[in-house]
Amino acid sequence: MAFEFEVVATDGNARAGILHTPHGDIPTPVFAPVGTAATVKAVPPRDLEDLNIKLVLSNTYHLHLRPGDELVRDLGGLHNFMAWNGPLLTDSGGFQVFSLGEINRIDDDGVTFRSHLDGSARRLTPGRSMEIQRNLGADIIMAFDQCPNPNHRDEVQAANERTHRWLRLCRENHPDDSNQALFGIVQGGVFPDLRQASARFVTDMDLKGYAIGGLAVGETKEEMYQTLDDTLPSLPGDRPRYLMGVGEPDDLVEGICRGVDIFDCVIPTRLARHGAAFTQAGRINLRNSKFKTDESAIDASLSNYASQFSRAYLRHLVVAKELLAYYLISLHNIDFLARHVESMRRAIIAGTLQEYAAQFLPRYLRRNPVAESAP
Amino acid sequence: MAFEFEVVATDGNARAGILHTPHGDIPTPVFAPVGTAATVKAVPPRDLEDLNIKLVLSNTYHLHLRPGDELVRDLGGLHNFMAWNGPLLTDSGGFQVFSLGEINRIDDDGVTFRSHLDGSARRLTPGRSMEIQRNLGADIIMAFDQCPNPNHRDEVQAANERTHRWLRLCRENHPDDSNQALFGIVQGGVFPDLRQASARFVTDMDLKGYAIGGLAVGETKEEMYQTLDDTLPSLPGDRPRYLMGVGEPDDLVEGICRGVDIFDCVIPTRLARHGAAFTQAGRINLRNSKFKTDESAIDASLSNYASQFSRAYLRHLVVAKELLAYYLISLHNIDFLARHVESMRRAIIAGTLQEYAAQFLPRYLRRNPVAESAP
Repeated sequence: MAFEFEVVATDGNARAGILHTPHGDIPTPVFAPVGTAATVKAVPPRDLEDLNIKLVLSNTYHLHLRPGDELVRDLGGLHNFMAWNGPLLTDSGGFQVFSLGEINRIDDDGVTFRSHLDGSARRLTPGRSMEIQRNLGADIIMAFDQCPNPNHRDEVQAANERTHRWLRLCRENHPDDSNQALFGIVQGGVFPDLRQASARFVTDMDLKGYAIGGLAVGETKEEMYQTLDDTLPSLPGDRPRYLMGVGEPDDLVEGICRGVDIFDCVIPTRLARHGAAFTQAGRINLRNSKFKTDESAIDASLSNYASQFSRAYLRHLVVAKELLAYYLISLHNIDFLARHVESMRRAIIAGTLQEYAAQFLPRYLRRNPVAESAP
Repeated sequence: MAFEFEVVATDGNARAGILHTPHGDIPTPVFAPVGTAATVKAVPPRDLEDLNIKLVLSNTYHLHLRPGDELVRDLGGLHNFMAWNGPLLTDSGGFQVFSLGEINRIDDDGVTFRSHLDGSARRLTPGRSMEIQRNLGADIIMAFDQCPNPNHRDEVQAANERTHRWLRLCRENHPDDSNQALFGIVQGGVFPDLRQASARFVTDMDLKGYAIGGLAVGETKEEMYQTLDDTLPSLPGDRPRYLMGVGEPDDLVEGICRGVDIFDCVIPTRLARHGAAFTQAGRINLRNSKFKTDESAIDASLSNYASQFSRAYLRHLVVAKELLAYYLISLHNIDFLARHVESMRRAIIAGTLQEYAAQFLPRYLRRNPVAESAP
């Protein structure tokens, strides 16, 4: 079977696995950089290969609006279009409809909205989302869901019902012999009983993988971690578990320790466009004048192409708004997250994940007086 | 001697040569992409190496203002700062002072102006230009000159006198044992007698190379070519000849056929930022909707990394203002000019430059009915 998921080692609740896909194996845990409009912003696909990136996410909402999913299909699908031959995942479009589109009407069958690009009237339904994602042709596709305010119980309850109804419709519109793996999304906000009810409904559909949606949308980190604790035990151990939209280095540790296998986030590329970079000693902003004469690389723990450039040079590029800055810092940030997750995978296999977490977190979060004086 | 120039073959007035520099040999004719602010916009230096680029130009005016030439010196010089180990050329700052700065006063000793970045008062003189270029540390540095309106005889005559006076001051501020080669600049607008007088004065200084300045600033192409015809015979055959700021594919043919050895221009990267790309059949703009479903590469004659992407995908990136567009099209355009000049060098050695020109020009300029129907 194309989408077999093997767990090769566990360490506490954490798991190291391999997810087989038609475009190659994904060692898990894995972090997927986001290529919203069929490009990981500023980073050519060959650099993603060089960084050993094993999964890229692209956005259904954006590609449906521009250049159009039918055009992408006619040009050989998303892999061919963007010259990325590794595994791809597309989201359902639901999250972006709610966050970017101008909503006209939400009903039990779908959402009517206006495009944020040209104001054109559009409608997205579970069936349309499946059709668009079929046109795009990613290896992993997501069910169309509604992401509510996680702290409003009534809103969350209504969104759960809709999400479950829509999942059934997605499932009906997804052929059993598809070469795409459909993942279901568990909603439920920060409410344990609603999360568990959603997990029960979604896992009853016997899908290739399960996502935890509706997090990293305004709740506190403690609420996010608690919700993972409340939800993950309800997800079957033999399917990959995907925490959507999460990618801060500390959140990756917390998620992996709790048993999450897949993550995606725009953070490495978005931060880069603001001049911010990950280091083992926390996030830095290269625009800061203290880097004016700093001849060291962004972070000594990495050895990617960006490591050849000094912080002083990168600061100059950021201040001068030079395009090369966005490329080099994006490369660095993606590499940082990929190596971080890879290190945790090795630690899981070695049974040393707690040691890794205990060493990484205080330094990254600067809770350690020693780290305070680090660059 | 570090800056020996050898002519290895001639074909009519055209020459194939090698210019030896402390950072490597430059086969000539050569086209230098421009890295204004210590970066060829959007293109990492390793890609320039992959494209076999042998010379990069950077701008003294810009680097003096930001990040400051003394900072660059303290960080090991421009090569080290921008991680480019090949030959570098810096201009004198003169051209940018006149085109970008807000001029307060021009006198016989230099120019007082305001920075276009922060309005700060600045002064540039021949001595300061030499000092700044020494701090930057390029292999080839340029004399500080005044670039006049090429069609105003009185203005050109006054600029000639100033340029010659300033050249003497540059020469006096340039040590004989320098590891930087100082090139003089011939001015004279479109007036043959003024060009010849300037060439006489400048070549009497016995410098490592000679530039033809003050062209590509508003005169017609015919005037530019005529001025080359009027000027080049006055330049000694055993020194490299540099046509500043010129880089259109047809101008490269016309310049090389007349005996120019070095060219630089922002055109490949500037066009890329507008979505425009060179092809053998002329310039195209990838934003054009006719490329929406075009699965071919930008130009079949090239095989760089950008060639892996379809025009349809590049059009999407341009329309979506995705950063990857600027990288890929810049890469393509630089490769186009570099291969074009390299082909002419081979043709000079084979004695077939006229055939190359007769084949390239009508097709590129679409004077040929067959080329009209080409993509």
